[in-house]
Amino acid sequence: MSTTGPAALPQPVLVRGTGLLGTSIGLALRGRGVEVLLHDPSPSALAVAQDIGAGRAVELEADAGAGEAADVPSPGTVVVAAPPDVAGRVAVDSLRRWPEAVVMDIASVKASVQADVRAAVAKGRLSASDASRYVGTHPMAGRERSGPVAARGTLFTAAPWVVCAEPDTAPEALAAAEALAASTGATVHTMDAGEHDASVALISHLPQVAASLVASRLQETPAASLALAGNGLRDTTRIAASDPQLWVQILAGNAGRLVEILHGVRADLDRLIGTLEDPDAPGARLDIAQLIAEGNAGQARIPGKHGAPPQAFAVVTVVVDDTPGQIAAVLQATGDAGVNVEDLRMDHASGHEVGMLEISVLPGRREELTAALTERGWKVV
Amino acid sequence: MSTTGPAALPQPVLVRGTGLLGTSIGLALRGRGVEVLLHDPSPSALAVAQDIGAGRAVELEADAGAGEAADVPSPGTVVVAAPPDVAGRVAVDSLRRWPEAVVMDIASVKASVQADVRAAVAKGRLSASDASRYVGTHPMAGRERSGPVAARGTLFTAAPWVVCAEPDTAPEALAAAEALAASTGATVHTMDAGEHDASVALISHLPQVAASLVASRLQETPAASLALAGNGLRDTTRIAASDPQLWVQILAGNAGRLVEILHGVRADLDRLIGTLEDPDAPGARLDIAQLIAEGNAGQARIPGKHGAPPQAFAVVTVVVDDTPGQIAAVLQATGDAGVNVEDLRMDHASGHEVGMLEISVLPGRREELTAALTERGWKVV
Repeated sequence: MSTTGPAALPQPVLVRGTGLLGTSIGLALRGRGVEVLLHDPSPSALAVAQDIGAGRAVELEADAGAGEAADVPSPGTVVVAAPPDVAGRVAVDSLRRWPEAVVMDIASVKASVQADVRAAVAKGRLSASDASRYVGTHPMAGRERSGPVAARGTLFTAAPWVVCAEPDTAPEALAAAEALAASTGATVHTMDAGEHDASVALISHLPQVAASLVASRLQETPAASLALAGNGLRDTTRIAASDPQLWVQILAGNAGRLVEILHGVRADLDRLIGTLEDPDAPGARLDIAQLIAEGNAGQARIPGKHGAPPQAFAVVTVVVDDTPGQIAAVLQATGDAGVNVEDLRMDHASGHEVGMLEISVLPGRREELTAALTERGWKVV
Repeated sequence: MSTTGPAALPQPVLVRGTGLLGTSIGLALRGRGVEVLLHDPSPSALAVAQDIGAGRAVELEADAGAGEAADVPSPGTVVVAAPPDVAGRVAVDSLRRWPEAVVMDIASVKASVQADVRAAVAKGRLSASDASRYVGTHPMAGRERSGPVAARGTLFTAAPWVVCAEPDTAPEALAAAEALAASTGATVHTMDAGEHDASVALISHLPQVAASLVASRLQETPAASLALAGNGLRDTTRIAASDPQLWVQILAGNAGRLVEILHGVRADLDRLIGTLEDPDAPGARLDIAQLIAEGNAGQARIPGKHGAPPQAFAVVTVVVDDTPGQIAAVLQATGDAGVNVEDLRMDHASGHEVGMLEISVLPGRREELTAALTERGWKVV
């Protein structure tokens, strides 16, 4: 096994937990020449991860004090990729087992894992110096499928990876975590655990709850009503397809921060319900307009692609029919015109055999592209 | 002006209201050779609509009883494309002015317009026979921009257009409305006004409220938190950018049906808040899992493209960098492999210069496409 990779990353790297994320980390690091060891309580998950090239499977003694088998090199860095509700326990175990290693976890909620590490210090199971080797992180990537078979070395490409810097984090541990994240192709965002958890409560956990609440209303909806659904409903509920078992751990793990936001949502919802119960009362319409306007204001703050200012792109919409090569031909013509595609989506409604291809471009290129496509016979709408 | 077009559609067609939708209807009908007259209380909106070819601008007398100017032919069909809160008044006025014409409106909420027509019968301003010439309809299309300048003759292509059949609707009036909708390229869905309003409360008005409620929480969010936003947040809040003045009319016009649904949402939200306030209580985790699972069940019922069963497609994800022609080249290779693109989206995170192109294909073609793209050097993840 070659041992190249970033200098700030102590090797070998041991990944504890070979699900989708742990195995993908192994694949990404192996692709950079990093020495990777793998462990998982499930022998079959572990075997799959090793077979697809994520690293070398090792055995660990059940008891942290017992020492490891002779063929297990002492890891320089441990990545705890266990499910969120056991991540804290596995992180503490790792800090105890390997007194020189940097230990990072990748759970979606950070304060609770950090609390487990601090509790171990309070109970005398870890020293303060041991705890300083712990770094909480969160790679914000995933797939609709789970398990090592779904793993991809490119899973983290272009994804944000939060690394939590606390006052008591050792600088070399922080540097190791940042080096590991960067070497997978992710973009490193540094903040503390509280800031992380407050951020994901708003930008990830609240949208999940909203999507689930809306989608759960559709359980009894007649098919004739659902046939009218457009991209508005599809987009709003897409993430409602998420895994219940994973989300129980995430929502419960960040319950305090999320519930605070949900109280605000409930206050707005109560106000709207009150208004809609008497929509002709004085001030009622102003109240509704204000809710929509507040949504406008919040939505406009979400950054676009590549961290660009929101809504920085102009959209050119082209009618395409449903035969192979149509979309390719439009984009070929776009490339020929020297115009870069900043974003792309297919807009369509059910029950029809044509679609709209929405091509986002820099605003200054819009007219040029419209002219180029029209000239080539495309229907730009 | 040529006068072709569907036999079931009495001509000329008078469009009252030359905003985005009215003007787009004019353009679509003119493209089919239908004779179109236009009127709008705003002379400048009317002039723009005529200038871009949506039909011939006409003057109407202020008073329905006064008769029209000599150069205004009596319309065979009137399309009321006025704002939702005056659509009922303009529909009644049209039924009185032109005693032979079919009168259809296109407002987003149908029971309230129909109630205005029935109230006019009750007050003796219309006969029951007059009222039978009225047909409520709703073309489910729009753009992010408004006004006649944004109008497009292809706006309704592939969009659902609901036509409301009531027991007292005259068959020839219904046929005229269906013929008009179909001739714009829309897919006609026939149901009654109550069914329509209940449907849009769920599939359109509820998602709008949810998106606005989530987005309004982002008004004070620090930029560092928003920088972590992924497609989950973007998709969930996209429609929060909608026009407040229009949505006040829509939500207030369907208040009764919407408020009933919102009571259900509030009950679910209250249950979730109660659970999250004590996430370690017995049964708490089961409660959270149930909310997510109910969302799974509802989301799975939303039809896909072309009315296909939901989630019928497999997704092939390809890493593309940000230079002209990259996406075209991938799709060219896809077309060369004889595989049809069923849906397409660009997945990306802020702060990075590569993106993921997600190509939806029939499940049986997935492996074939993956092999074909990999062979040509694309990174399929």
